[in-house]
Amino acid sequence: MNGRLILNILGKLLVLEAGMMAPALFISLLSRQNDALPFVYTILLILLLGLPLVLLKCDSKDVRAKEGLVVVSLAWVLLSAFGALPFIFHGSIPNFINAMFEIVSGFTTTGATILSNIEILPKGLLFWRSFTHWVGGMGVLILTLAVMPKLSGRGSVLARAESPGPTFSKVAPKMRDTARMMYAIYSVLTLIMLGLLLLTGMPLFDALIHTLGAAGTGGFSNKNLSVGFYNNPWAEGIIALFMLLFGMNFVVYFRLLRGEGLKSFKSDEVRAYWLIALATMVLIALELLPEYGNFLTAFRYSSFQVSSIMSTTGYATVNFALWPQFSHILLVLLMLIGACAGSTAGGIKVSRVVILSKAAGREIGQAAAPRKVRLLQVDKKVLSEDTLRSILVFFFIYMVFLFLGTLVASTDGHDFVTCFSAVASCLSNIGPGLSLVGPLGNFDIFSPHVKVILTFLMLAGRLEFIPLLSLFHRELWSKSH
Amino acid sequence: MNGRLILNILGKLLVLEAGMMAPALFISLLSRQNDALPFVYTILLILLLGLPLVLLKCDSKDVRAKEGLVVVSLAWVLLSAFGALPFIFHGSIPNFINAMFEIVSGFTTTGATILSNIEILPKGLLFWRSFTHWVGGMGVLILTLAVMPKLSGRGSVLARAESPGPTFSKVAPKMRDTARMMYAIYSVLTLIMLGLLLLTGMPLFDALIHTLGAAGTGGFSNKNLSVGFYNNPWAEGIIALFMLLFGMNFVVYFRLLRGEGLKSFKSDEVRAYWLIALATMVLIALELLPEYGNFLTAFRYSSFQVSSIMSTTGYATVNFALWPQFSHILLVLLMLIGACAGSTAGGIKVSRVVILSKAAGREIGQAAAPRKVRLLQVDKKVLSEDTLRSILVFFFIYMVFLFLGTLVASTDGHDFVTCFSAVASCLSNIGPGLSLVGPLGNFDIFSPHVKVILTFLMLAGRLEFIPLLSLFHRELWSKSH
Repeated sequence: MNGRLILNILGKLLVLEAGMMAPALFISLLSRQNDALPFVYTILLILLLGLPLVLLKCDSKDVRAKEGLVVVSLAWVLLSAFGALPFIFHGSIPNFINAMFEIVSGFTTTGATILSNIEILPKGLLFWRSFTHWVGGMGVLILTLAVMPKLSGRGSVLARAESPGPTFSKVAPKMRDTARMMYAIYSVLTLIMLGLLLLTGMPLFDALIHTLGAAGTGGFSNKNLSVGFYNNPWAEGIIALFMLLFGMNFVVYFRLLRGEGLKSFKSDEVRAYWLIALATMVLIALELLPEYGNFLTAFRYSSFQVSSIMSTTGYATVNFALWPQFSHILLVLLMLIGACAGSTAGGIKVSRVVILSKAAGREIGQAAAPRKVRLLQVDKKVLSEDTLRSILVFFFIYMVFLFLGTLVASTDGHDFVTCFSAVASCLSNIGPGLSLVGPLGNFDIFSPHVKVILTFLMLAGRLEFIPLLSLFHRELWSKSH
Repeated sequence: MNGRLILNILGKLLVLEAGMMAPALFISLLSRQNDALPFVYTILLILLLGLPLVLLKCDSKDVRAKEGLVVVSLAWVLLSAFGALPFIFHGSIPNFINAMFEIVSGFTTTGATILSNIEILPKGLLFWRSFTHWVGGMGVLILTLAVMPKLSGRGSVLARAESPGPTFSKVAPKMRDTARMMYAIYSVLTLIMLGLLLLTGMPLFDALIHTLGAAGTGGFSNKNLSVGFYNNPWAEGIIALFMLLFGMNFVVYFRLLRGEGLKSFKSDEVRAYWLIALATMVLIALELLPEYGNFLTAFRYSSFQVSSIMSTTGYATVNFALWPQFSHILLVLLMLIGACAGSTAGGIKVSRVVILSKAAGREIGQAAAPRKVRLLQVDKKVLSEDTLRSILVFFFIYMVFLFLGTLVASTDGHDFVTCFSAVASCLSNIGPGLSLVGPLGNFDIFSPHVKVILTFLMLAGRLEFIPLLSLFHRELWSKSH
């Protein structure tokens, strides 16, 4: 384990975080709501710790797999810990566990909050909360790779550990170029969405907040009623569409840029993604028909909520915790599945669900006709048995965390649906759940030990378990391997 | 596909079922409660259909994998359909869907009932219901192998398709001898339990019913209050112990008979089984402490309920649907896990959970130290990657059925916990669930289409998915394979 190298990279990340706070500081200076000083203190503290680390000399700049895991895990914990400071210094979230919950919820693009009244927060803090969504969505390490003097050829180790999905698509031969292209596309899409939202008449600050939240598939709002506050069908439509677009595999956009046209959408995952989304929207609209009277109104609410949950964003235009049972369970299924790999979204990911279903079909076929040799194909390419096994194991780990997490959450005595949906929501980085943690509820109902576990689950889900869990594996720390 | 052979074997099974009804007929003749004629009619009908099939001439007696899957699936459906007739002819369950639910619940050793008052059933029918537990626990095809003129060397195909667990332990070189030893041990354990229950002062008929229910890990009782009716600590203790014993891998008993002493219990699965059971008993007792005042009373209730749920039996001495949340979620976890492979119990099986956990640990180790070669070992033997993949896929299929089943069940509008626990209970062949389907509730609250789905889930869970699902696979029916 190359400790100096790890500290050096973490130092660079900290300096980057100080830079990330600059726009928030700027907004707080503009809005004069007494939250500028907390940012100044935090930035100074970060630089005080980060700059010496950046100057640390390292013998080797080669990031191996082990170091990659440690860097990614520590980076997310460290950036969150420092990111929580402005809330503590300002006094709006004085408790460290709560502030940590809130900012981890930001970076992991979960969007679950422990605040009951968001609207009293000053604009600088509101912006910072939402900006963590945007950065966390694409990944803090990928950002480092994109903007910092290059680490070394092995940077893909870092990107792989941080990127959601079973495989990592390197679209350019150099990791740094891939990271830059990722962020370029991400930024352009973000700007288009911001422009469109402004056209609907939404105020600039509100449009900014909801654009950052949708782009990162996070879900923090600056209104207690979330997007429901505006009751503006145009804004709802734009947000719904962009949530789904940011939940789609970014490889599609690369291919569009390369001029592949409609062929860019030809992928098992993307097809399944839109199919599941559309089918659920229609099914829920049908169940809501008696409540809303006509299909179009029912579809307006079902499509927004489905886009929000499936893309793991978490915005709401209606209190879906009051919806009937069938719709609830459909939403729970969407929570578990999540959106596409290679997007800013969370969850098990559609590509994994597609591959798992194919594997199940193959197993049944194998029983029916044992002598035939069967290869698993995704997008007409053979999937290696090793990748398949990793995906199968991932599914098992996800379920173990889901059920054990629910068990821990239940120690507070809240009902099954609250605990189960809160844990699913944190694991898949969604935000709201059902029952007491529905879109109008908040996570402050849980006691500190449950909040700590939920914070861990958000990080575990965002990093897809392996980096965080490997920290607890003896062999990561032994010298012989 | 050798259709004549399949019909021939099904004919033998039907004749065997007619024989299985003889003791029930005998009891109904003795108790004179007007349920003898329904049995006579059913037996005549079965023989009318079965005897010609037995006389059918087959060119080849070689049961291949494909035929094995078809025979096992059709056998369970057919025996259930005919087993339901006495209830219909008698009029106590006039509706076919309900009668089918009840008897599939019997054969699959689930023990879920659609009857609200069991105590008005005549003794013959009560006995038949419970006897299906006993036969279904070890398996109807294994019974056929044990008592019928031998099929052919490939009988193990049938046993494999019917036996619960990831691998099938053939303890004797000939399949027929294995089946006979299985049933011998099973019968002796059953008789010991019956004797002990009689010693506690329980009436003969009641002791018989509860012995059959515990041996098959089924859970049908002849009392509305289940075992709670007797309020007899000795009877409770014996039933709790034997439920766990019947949920243990029968290989342990083989090894004990071979004189291996305490070494017989040396197995990763058996160790985990007792450990999970004991830990849950203590945890639940601790949560129930305030309710019952002292640890011993709390442990009395927690240990019985845990033994019952973990062994997937489903007897109750208390309405655990009223227990607090943490205990509920522990029970749900036990429902999913179930007991040991190679027992009469259902669920995912402890051996699978052990192997899945080891696989997860290996995956994390692989990330931490990628260059080391790691083999999965169970009981110090290397597990093949093919077996591991089957287990991983099994877990995925189980979860898909659990969540999609919950979705279908929710169309009746019942709450999440009712639907989820009802489906888990049926899939793992337990019996009661939580909320509306708790130990004092019953499954008649569901509408017919949900009952049909739950019936299918009981069968799918008992046969561990592959045989039933393969019927829907094109290649099972194509000639080329």
